[in-house]
Amino acid sequence: MAKVFIEPVGVTLEIGEEQDLLTALLAAGIAIPSDCAGRGTCGKCLVRLGSGELSEVTEVESKRLPANLREDGWRLACQARPVSARVSIEVRQAGGRRRILTASKLHHGRAKTAVVRRLMELPPATLEDKRADQERLLAVCVACGDGRQAALGATRELPDLLRRHGWRAMVTSYDGRVIDAEPPEVQAVAYGAAVDIGTSKVIAYLFDLEAGRLVDQEATENPQMRYGEDVISRIARAVDADGARELATAVRDGINQVLGELCERNGVDPRHIYDMTVVGNTAMHHLALGLSPVGLGSAPFAPAVADPLTLRAAELGLAMNPEGGVHFPPPIAGFVGSDALAVVAATRLASKRRPCLAVDIGTNTEIAVALDGRVTATSCASGPAFEGYQITHGMKAVAGAIERVRIDDAGLPVEVATIGNQPALGLCGSGVVDLLAGLVASGVVDHTGRMQPHELVRRGENGLEYLLTEGAIGPIVFTQHDVRALQLAKGAIASGWLLLLEKLALEPGDLHRVYVAGAFGNYLDVGAALRLDLLPPVSRDRVAFVGNAAGVGAQMALIDVGARRRMAALRARIEFLDLATDARFNEVFTRRLQFAPRA
Amino acid sequence: MAKVFIEPVGVTLEIGEEQDLLTALLAAGIAIPSDCAGRGTCGKCLVRLGSGELSEVTEVESKRLPANLREDGWRLACQARPVSARVSIEVRQAGGRRRILTASKLHHGRAKTAVVRRLMELPPATLEDKRADQERLLAVCVACGDGRQAALGATRELPDLLRRHGWRAMVTSYDGRVIDAEPPEVQAVAYGAAVDIGTSKVIAYLFDLEAGRLVDQEATENPQMRYGEDVISRIARAVDADGARELATAVRDGINQVLGELCERNGVDPRHIYDMTVVGNTAMHHLALGLSPVGLGSAPFAPAVADPLTLRAAELGLAMNPEGGVHFPPPIAGFVGSDALAVVAATRLASKRRPCLAVDIGTNTEIAVALDGRVTATSCASGPAFEGYQITHGMKAVAGAIERVRIDDAGLPVEVATIGNQPALGLCGSGVVDLLAGLVASGVVDHTGRMQPHELVRRGENGLEYLLTEGAIGPIVFTQHDVRALQLAKGAIASGWLLLLEKLALEPGDLHRVYVAGAFGNYLDVGAALRLDLLPPVSRDRVAFVGNAAGVGAQMALIDVGARRRMAALRARIEFLDLATDARFNEVFTRRLQFAPRA
Repeated sequence: MAKVFIEPVGVTLEIGEEQDLLTALLAAGIAIPSDCAGRGTCGKCLVRLGSGELSEVTEVESKRLPANLREDGWRLACQARPVSARVSIEVRQAGGRRRILTASKLHHGRAKTAVVRRLMELPPATLEDKRADQERLLAVCVACGDGRQAALGATRELPDLLRRHGWRAMVTSYDGRVIDAEPPEVQAVAYGAAVDIGTSKVIAYLFDLEAGRLVDQEATENPQMRYGEDVISRIARAVDADGARELATAVRDGINQVLGELCERNGVDPRHIYDMTVVGNTAMHHLALGLSPVGLGSAPFAPAVADPLTLRAAELGLAMNPEGGVHFPPPIAGFVGSDALAVVAATRLASKRRPCLAVDIGTNTEIAVALDGRVTATSCASGPAFEGYQITHGMKAVAGAIERVRIDDAGLPVEVATIGNQPALGLCGSGVVDLLAGLVASGVVDHTGRMQPHELVRRGENGLEYLLTEGAIGPIVFTQHDVRALQLAKGAIASGWLLLLEKLALEPGDLHRVYVAGAFGNYLDVGAALRLDLLPPVSRDRVAFVGNAAGVGAQMALIDVGARRRMAALRARIEFLDLATDARFNEVFTRRLQFAPRA
Repeated sequence: MAKVFIEPVGVTLEIGEEQDLLTALLAAGIAIPSDCAGRGTCGKCLVRLGSGELSEVTEVESKRLPANLREDGWRLACQARPVSARVSIEVRQAGGRRRILTASKLHHGRAKTAVVRRLMELPPATLEDKRADQERLLAVCVACGDGRQAALGATRELPDLLRRHGWRAMVTSYDGRVIDAEPPEVQAVAYGAAVDIGTSKVIAYLFDLEAGRLVDQEATENPQMRYGEDVISRIARAVDADGARELATAVRDGINQVLGELCERNGVDPRHIYDMTVVGNTAMHHLALGLSPVGLGSAPFAPAVADPLTLRAAELGLAMNPEGGVHFPPPIAGFVGSDALAVVAATRLASKRRPCLAVDIGTNTEIAVALDGRVTATSCASGPAFEGYQITHGMKAVAGAIERVRIDDAGLPVEVATIGNQPALGLCGSGVVDLLAGLVASGVVDHTGRMQPHELVRRGENGLEYLLTEGAIGPIVFTQHDVRALQLAKGAIASGWLLLLEKLALEPGDLHRVYVAGAFGNYLDVGAALRLDLLPPVSRDRVAFVGNAAGVGAQMALIDVGARRRMAALRARIEFLDLATDARFNEVFTRRLQFAPRA
């Protein structure tokens, strides 16, 4: 039997060596197009090999698949069998669009973008006016207030363009610098992308910069995951220059992949993506820039760069206009990134008059508290368990994922709801939180985290497991190991907010508002999250879900250059708490591994 | 018989199919090392295939030549025979170093380079001082007055470097921007290169920027030559974007080739070349930058860019530090380049109180006249004949080239001197001028350019030819066609200075000084040049040879940022005369094709 990980669904199937992928996928209820009953003639059941090995390409495939697809790793599922013990494949699904968070409940404010796009008419060159084409163009740009400089890349074909089109051109400027000149009749608008690089996921938001409108969004697994699921192992990998380059390439590939999907789906030419903002924790920030993260690996955790950076896209090899700008808001400190800054900016925490807390739960969890206009932030390595990684039947929040679970007092599941009401394939983050909270509340899991004897608890291959439901592919269980992984995560998160509140001499009850951000933010059950200590104990009406606030901060910076300046100024005002060198962390963490005893 | 062009000697040999290259080269007197009588065991007779085809690699060669040399196109001359009708090869000569012009008779002035290199010691990161590494570095740089910004490329490995070397580093800045950080014990100094891109040749001067000292210089044929010998055919080639890219790649390859040779010969790591200045005519300027030259092809000859440009080396793909700067002084106009600006700057023409003229003879000839602190410049397409191209037995100024010829009144050669007193291989520029002037003076060539009956004039394969001498490889002749090519060149040059003087209402006699620059400048016989109208008729003592003044201008800009500013200001003050749209050009040119009648 081979373990086959299916992207983008996020489940692992066990497939026998004699079974083809199509049969196995269809048996598991995973949507994949196929019109020829597996004869290999319709060519629709495309899968792409990620890692591991599949059986050799068959003659049928050689005939049916164009060479470029084959070279790109595409196979026909009906022709391929797993050969190695572990294989990961990507399924090209017909209708399997991922469920994505709506942008935000937060306002963006008024937009003034770095990018200006304008049709310009130039005085033609004559024997009396022999100025250089660029000088001619810049004179008009200066008159419009658009630019004083021009990128070489935008000038290269300018002479030809102007002479072919009667000295008229569609001119795009970035922050006072001309970066593109196109024929006057070009219809496309200027686009931008806001990118949130998470430890596990890369999320990109495509904006029409002229209308200030979100066009689409897309996420993918951070390709750095193959170098380790947590930040520390990636820092270790990147201590030498080659490793840093590999990790930089990996995450840029991830960004280019989501950009590519966004462009294709929306008919956008990458040339017309002129601006990008990127936020992430400090390690992701450094690795994306190819900066050595060696300073982030040990105390005093000094970052390599903590200023805002704006680079040319060509310098980073991103699949957008090469002269376009890529802006990185500054990280706050070595262990508190620009994603935390983005969360603080998006929640307007610094302008709150009453004490407020914001928490962004992810593989790294960022927490910030505002008190009297002063913001203190920290970050803790909570691991990817709440994102569905490292959990036996964890999966992403896509169709078929159990997102809502209710366990009654007897420890029995009375509600198991999936995204899209599809047959259950696994558990996504909000389902995991519900389930664990329910098991703790009903006593199936005791306060130390140990599973108790129960009619649904059985001994599985890897120790005790709770049988939640019979899923589409087989029983969906929640194991003792899963509980332990989640305990580590919740212990870290709870220690974070606790020490932060202590430092500011605040009690949870002092908090006027708790903003919850992060991938599963909007789908989280407040009661369950409070029971698991993911949030400080406040009354439910004080909890507000704000979606992907880090992404919103990146969007704010994308569509408003004023926000970039304000974020840089904000960063200078944010204090930070370094948990790793906090003397009390270990003690608090150990205590917070436990669950609250049954009420 | 195959025609085999030998680089860097510049001669063409006719070699039979059964003859190996070593035998043929030695028979022609071309120096090539060989210690084993052609058995293929010493491995010294290295030649590299440029174009065309040679016989297959023999077993002997496979054994003797390392794989990397073979892959690079190197062969053993004793093992290789020409197979195609035309072949070009490069000979690795032991003692055949090209004769090169000494830098200049002109002063550089005081140097203040863009590059500063300094050993710096930083306060280490502590729990009390968690500033980013870059911030820490820049604080010290600002204190030294060296920089306020840092290139991402210089920061990438900074964290590791600082922690490994006790927070000390050798830091290099370019114009206030940190571009490199290295271990503190690194010994290398900072280097720079001044490059003069001629239509036919690329010349580079390597400087130790700290000492302001010329280290070495090197020249190569402009690889764009394969796209056409004159500027117009290259502009035609580059009207579409692909063509422009090809020509940009070609000339950058040429620059990288001379840089590579300079680095290898002087043990310099390309990383330590931090600055470059580049001058050339406007077409070369545009093509090197990948700018469309379409505006240069027809009236009103508007350039694409006429501002000074400073780019990152990485943007141009040059084989130096990728964060280093590459500065292009501005062209004066569409047909008067930055090389003319460099000549004006190097000769300090704008500060002359009396009327002076400077002429830089090359494939394009630049001419500038100073009058009352006002400079007027022009440029004419004189073709490559005076550089030895398009001349039957023309060659570069290397060992074996006839550089001096004296013809007596009877039209007989009484002196034929070669460079290095080697057996004669061909004629270089100064030899061509001497010979033509002598033939005109003695009446062997009449004032219309026609060869007259004479004991040394015979009918050759391609019409009439004058037998100058029996060379090392065979008779060296000068043909009627050669005379015609030189007439076109001298007609263009003479029209240039004549129309320029006319425009300024000057007579040749008014000129206080005539500066002669260009590749053959120092070796030109003044009398011969005057006789051929290459210079305005002035008394010999008013003619001064200034070497490669364009290269000197590039050197001035390299070692002094003040010179860059002064050249940009100078450019704004230079007026230009456009010969192509001058109503009188054709009439003057036709008249000036003729030689002055015999005295």
